[in-house]
Amino acid sequence: MAHALALGRRGMGHVWPNPAVGCVIVSRGRIVGRGWTQPGGRPHAETEALAQAGTAARNATAYVTLEPCAHHGKTPPCAEALIAAGVARVVAPLEDSDPRVAGQGFALLRAAGVEVTNGVMAAEAQADHAGFFLRVEQGRPFVTLKLALSLDGRIATASGESRWITGPEARRVVHGLRARHDAVMVGGGTARADDPALTVRGFGTVSQPVRVVVSRLLDLPLMGQLARTAQEVPVWICHGPDVSTELRDAWQGLGARLFSCALAGGRLAPQSVLHALGEAGLTRVLCEGGGQLAASLLAEDLVDELQVFSAGVVLGAEGVPGIGALGIGALSEAPRLALAEQRGVGNDMYSIWRRN
Amino acid sequence: MAHALALGRRGMGHVWPNPAVGCVIVSRGRIVGRGWTQPGGRPHAETEALAQAGTAARNATAYVTLEPCAHHGKTPPCAEALIAAGVARVVAPLEDSDPRVAGQGFALLRAAGVEVTNGVMAAEAQADHAGFFLRVEQGRPFVTLKLALSLDGRIATASGESRWITGPEARRVVHGLRARHDAVMVGGGTARADDPALTVRGFGTVSQPVRVVVSRLLDLPLMGQLARTAQEVPVWICHGPDVSTELRDAWQGLGARLFSCALAGGRLAPQSVLHALGEAGLTRVLCEGGGQLAASLLAEDLVDELQVFSAGVVLGAEGVPGIGALGIGALSEAPRLALAEQRGVGNDMYSIWRRN
Repeated sequence: MAHALALGRRGMGHVWPNPAVGCVIVSRGRIVGRGWTQPGGRPHAETEALAQAGTAARNATAYVTLEPCAHHGKTPPCAEALIAAGVARVVAPLEDSDPRVAGQGFALLRAAGVEVTNGVMAAEAQADHAGFFLRVEQGRPFVTLKLALSLDGRIATASGESRWITGPEARRVVHGLRARHDAVMVGGGTARADDPALTVRGFGTVSQPVRVVVSRLLDLPLMGQLARTAQEVPVWICHGPDVSTELRDAWQGLGARLFSCALAGGRLAPQSVLHALGEAGLTRVLCEGGGQLAASLLAEDLVDELQVFSAGVVLGAEGVPGIGALGIGALSEAPRLALAEQRGVGNDMYSIWRRN
Repeated sequence: MAHALALGRRGMGHVWPNPAVGCVIVSRGRIVGRGWTQPGGRPHAETEALAQAGTAARNATAYVTLEPCAHHGKTPPCAEALIAAGVARVVAPLEDSDPRVAGQGFALLRAAGVEVTNGVMAAEAQADHAGFFLRVEQGRPFVTLKLALSLDGRIATASGESRWITGPEARRVVHGLRARHDAVMVGGGTARADDPALTVRGFGTVSQPVRVVVSRLLDLPLMGQLARTAQEVPVWICHGPDVSTELRDAWQGLGARLFSCALAGGRLAPQSVLHALGEAGLTRVLCEGGGQLAASLLAEDLVDELQVFSAGVVLGAEGVPGIGALGIGALSEAPRLALAEQRGVGNDMYSIWRRN
């Protein structure tokens, strides 16, 4: 199952709106087939592994990282394929919460005489599929917030200089993070100040994540990197209801996809933004700032994981804060996260924090 | 030598203005004497170890973590004591830079026919004696800056609530840090806001560090914890030249020791403060904030080590910054430190950063 989970993770960031599943078929102690969800979301992991196994799948055990699907979608259901191949036993960590599956995959297998073992490495699988489940159950993607901070929590000097606070090793880790997410998201302020490309670089040819900008007024540079490359790599912009038709037309003309989102307190409501992205199919979104967008997500308890790169540099209180105003009264109201991992990356400190 | 260094560290925080030295005497592969500088600075490590070894010191090897002293101070020179005991060989990491020693200890030993090996574990000994050397060479103590921060670099909410950001495990580490420093130092703002005791608690009976408050106007609470306990544990206050005689008299009446320091740009000059403390004998000072004092030390490159406890909590931009304004123009001017150590402490992240 650990091997199947590792295979499944290969699809992370490339298979939305589908889950990134892995499958290993074992016959008499020997691996006869391995598969994972392919870019774009199909073929499914089971299809890949069964094709590799061929007739060796007969009487074999299939380790699948999520309940095999039972519904006829764009492909026939995997549960039927496993039965047709003569698989004797299916081992899985958990049920698919998609209402089109939800236990029916297991039921189909059992009805055909296939032995089903469920619950193996459930916590690990739950973590891997967290984005898929969040979208199915709550209609929003999993949100990873990345912060590259000075020791005193700043992301730029008072004059806006931010390149580079962290070192090249940390920046490479960030590109890896981008590759494992369906989309990279920034606020309009960051898009204007940094003119970022938000692409994955240094990892060979990979399918690029969608680039999402959250900008209430759609007032983004029409000559910037995002505008110039919107035909090659998707640019999605979440804006407020009160934007001019000229700006809408200009961005659509450049190839961007626009989402009109609701306001709350004069600002774009982060719930509305995330639900629009979930509706469009995204399961895993990496937010890379700025401070105001980060604060709005944290204030609404919409950050599932925080990835912090802390550099050995001090910028002082006049520097730009990595997290904007939260409007916290008492210390007990402040968002708390649990330390999950930490290690050094170059001269920077890298830590991962998750919801308690 | 590693064992001698470990013994020497037992004296850290308790032997100022003397160095915290360790000594191990080995005769025919067996340890016959162990010693370290005793509280208050004497007896010296060599005296202790020689007393333990007795006649077994004859023809033995003495591992000492600093060149043995050669001058008649309050005790006779250790180099002479080693010669008198018949020690055949002395192994040390480095020369004492105190001009009263500075190679004369080794010379005395060699002249008496004792074999001297210098340079063993020099880097480790240099780090352990850094405070002693800084005071001898530059007239100021080693400065450790401790920060207990939220993930976004804050030390309190906008309303000043700060208890507790970090957990009990981290706070225990801080008490251990206090015990290994000669003094704990805070700014006047912190003394007023938190009314701290600044004592070592939870480590049994230990000699307490001096409590230093940096307060330009000496406007500190006369009924606070520091004022009430100044007779039991020393309270030293570094103030500006322009304080009222009444306040001076009041604090001296309470038992505090006052240091009049120079101003720079309307504020107490951190160099002047540290030189006053060095003059008074301190070799290792732990600064525990607040943000303004921390910033003034960092801005003048007077922080030798930064110890950061990062809690999994986010307070937002309206929180009190852990480091005040630094007046940095370009990113290249910002103080940079190198990551030396990091580990988890309870649910907090603990990291140590040193000057590059």
